[in-house]
Amino acid sequence: MAINTKPMSGTMELLPHEQAEFERIKSLIEGTYKSFGFVSLDTPVIERAEVLFKEGAEINKQIYYTYNGLASEKIDALALRFDLTVPLARYVSEHFSSLTFPFRRLHIGKVYRGERAQKGRYREFYQCDIDVIGRGSLDIHYDAELPVIIYEIFKKMDIGKFTVKVNNRKVLNGFYRELGAESIAADVLRVVDKADKITHEEFLKALEEIGLNTEQVTKLLAFVGIKGSVAEVLAGLNALGIQNELFCEGVSELKTVTDIMTEMGMDADYFAIDLSIARGLDYYTGTVYETTLDDTPIGSICGGGRYDNLAENYSKEKLPGVGISIGLTRLFYLLREEGLINPTNKSASDVIVLPETKGNIPQAIEAAAALREARLNVDIMFEDVKMNKKLQYITKKDAPYTVVARTNPEGENYLSLQYKVDDEIIKEAMPLEYIVTKISNAISY
Amino acid sequence: MAINTKPMSGTMELLPHEQAEFERIKSLIEGTYKSFGFVSLDTPVIERAEVLFKEGAEINKQIYYTYNGLASEKIDALALRFDLTVPLARYVSEHFSSLTFPFRRLHIGKVYRGERAQKGRYREFYQCDIDVIGRGSLDIHYDAELPVIIYEIFKKMDIGKFTVKVNNRKVLNGFYRELGAESIAADVLRVVDKADKITHEEFLKALEEIGLNTEQVTKLLAFVGIKGSVAEVLAGLNALGIQNELFCEGVSELKTVTDIMTEMGMDADYFAIDLSIARGLDYYTGTVYETTLDDTPIGSICGGGRYDNLAENYSKEKLPGVGISIGLTRLFYLLREEGLINPTNKSASDVIVLPETKGNIPQAIEAAAALREARLNVDIMFEDVKMNKKLQYITKKDAPYTVVARTNPEGENYLSLQYKVDDEIIKEAMPLEYIVTKISNAISY
Repeated sequence: MAINTKPMSGTMELLPHEQAEFERIKSLIEGTYKSFGFVSLDTPVIERAEVLFKEGAEINKQIYYTYNGLASEKIDALALRFDLTVPLARYVSEHFSSLTFPFRRLHIGKVYRGERAQKGRYREFYQCDIDVIGRGSLDIHYDAELPVIIYEIFKKMDIGKFTVKVNNRKVLNGFYRELGAESIAADVLRVVDKADKITHEEFLKALEEIGLNTEQVTKLLAFVGIKGSVAEVLAGLNALGIQNELFCEGVSELKTVTDIMTEMGMDADYFAIDLSIARGLDYYTGTVYETTLDDTPIGSICGGGRYDNLAENYSKEKLPGVGISIGLTRLFYLLREEGLINPTNKSASDVIVLPETKGNIPQAIEAAAALREARLNVDIMFEDVKMNKKLQYITKKDAPYTVVARTNPEGENYLSLQYKVDDEIIKEAMPLEYIVTKISNAISY
Repeated sequence: MAINTKPMSGTMELLPHEQAEFERIKSLIEGTYKSFGFVSLDTPVIERAEVLFKEGAEINKQIYYTYNGLASEKIDALALRFDLTVPLARYVSEHFSSLTFPFRRLHIGKVYRGERAQKGRYREFYQCDIDVIGRGSLDIHYDAELPVIIYEIFKKMDIGKFTVKVNNRKVLNGFYRELGAESIAADVLRVVDKADKITHEEFLKALEEIGLNTEQVTKLLAFVGIKGSVAEVLAGLNALGIQNELFCEGVSELKTVTDIMTEMGMDADYFAIDLSIARGLDYYTGTVYETTLDDTPIGSICGGGRYDNLAENYSKEKLPGVGISIGLTRLFYLLREEGLINPTNKSASDVIVLPETKGNIPQAIEAAAALREARLNVDIMFEDVKMNKKLQYITKKDAPYTVVARTNPEGENYLSLQYKVDDEIIKEAMPLEYIVTKISNAISY
């Protein structure tokens, strides 16, 4: 009896009306991904731990292991996936010969990380991923298509002005090579990645600590100081006069990618080149993305990039790819905190049908069937309770439409349509066909 | 390099074209549930183990525990849910005051059981559940509505003739009381439940073993021998002349439920009263259901029933409910084994747009945007490879439509629409509006 009924800490459990809003956003993301030709995949949440574990990786500490007495596995043989990319690498290696490349895959699913409990940090959360995987090579047009998809999604979500920030790891790595800081490039990247989260003094101190001398710091500051429109940043990069091949390739890719983004109809106000973006993960090798809201300091809401080889640990095939991921659970939490989404009270279907008395149930059933024929979602409230209790059900569920099945004083059955719960009770009889047409015209999908 | 890339045994991992079929069925189930007023819920896959563990329950052995080094939890403090009903009970207890009753909830999600490895037995599988939870009481109309929903789903799935079998635990328990076998009712139920899986001799032997004498066995055989139409079974039950209150209440409920099923438009050919159905679980107390395919001996594909109290372990409120569950992973496996579904090769979008050369990419982008405006799912194949390689992509993905962006010998750009891959290449120029209209009229959602 004293069982704690709270969900595990670090998980998101929503009330029905919040869940409806969550589902709406999830469908919007999924639908947009599909509209760009991505097809759904689903892989097991449980993976062999050896697939997930990577010697020396930070993430190892966050892995949830799972075991069961019956299964003849060791206690640390199985684990819950911490992202959808490692399972994708395993999947593509396993099913390589059955797949068509470039392989466009969409995966929306839960992942697990043993994060320390903290507001807005989740241990179980949804990732919404798309990746395009090439066989041997992958055209750069795909690098440009992903930010366009992100643009479509966040425009439709209507969460205010945002910016898809693009950078290229070749530009960064080429620059560090030129700077003579290639051996500590990973450290520099890490510090630069944090630049906007720390003070300028802390930033300088961190650069010094990892071994940059004053001249190098000056050059680095000049580099990360290149800001402005896409054309201005590209001009700034060219003006550095760096001949390094990797650097030049990166700049050229940045130009190509941003050109194609424009060609694909992306509003120039919604993207920028941001040289401070590196994306922590080792495996990115070219274009990288991050999306932020302009007026709300909630950090990146979507990230990703290009990698040279998806599955080097599992396959001999070279599989370059490009992908993006939306951390939906955290995004939903942040948007709600910031008041950028307002789950309405709608946790109901399109229509609730209310038989006034038990004798009106057959009418209610007939009306519900006709409404369902018109592809509406219809809830019949069957409980044999007093009318005021029935109206409470309607009020609490806040269904957009209520159809009441009644009998008039002359003993004739009729239906009436109630638009809003707070309205006066409408007792006007209406033909079923009229009601069906009225509601289905009003509710568009 | 020697990492095993197979998914964990006991999980289902599908190829894209199979996944598309799986998703289609999942959507069909979800859409039908919604059309009857059920709203989506999502609860964490990880639960506190104390929520799942029930002293003495068989299922305990199948629980997957999960742990992580960072979390300050004991190694057996957390576990993966083994069904969606226990989490529902916890959810309703936790959020009781925020919910509207009768609470119609829909939940489609993965559950975990440490089953012994066996063909068609899964350790990770989807359940597709709906339940209606009442507060204090719940009208019997809900008992009748659930089989109607199941009927709608399997009719739409087009998997051949099926029968929704209905029984009532009160009939069974009342009969066993009358039989003087109440104390071993659970054992009798278990044996009767298995009746169609064992021989008649084994059945008799099992009944004897649990302590029924010859007279009791004779009466029991007469009881389980009552077969025929709904009216015939009800008549047979009445003819037993049993006065026992519980039994009579059960018979009356069976009549009411089957009457309402008919009233709700369910074809009498598709349901039956089957007195051998008990549903193993202790918590069912009234109506119980099982659905089987008439021409395919694959066992029950959907089960459920009425229970008196959903959350007795967590809440003081009395919460009667009725629910059904489709084990989608196993169902998909069985239907595929039986050849009742044939995943086509379709793992592609509605349309693939193919730029013949790099120079045709802008046309391809323009065409794709217009097709997406018309709500079509469109994949642009960007790879800069020879035309025969591009056509291989189309052939392997088997997209219903291909739009090719070309340049004619006079240097004019044009689009052409390819219906089937195997057709001759169509080189006729077609206006974009014509192509969009043509495809969107052909593909209906």
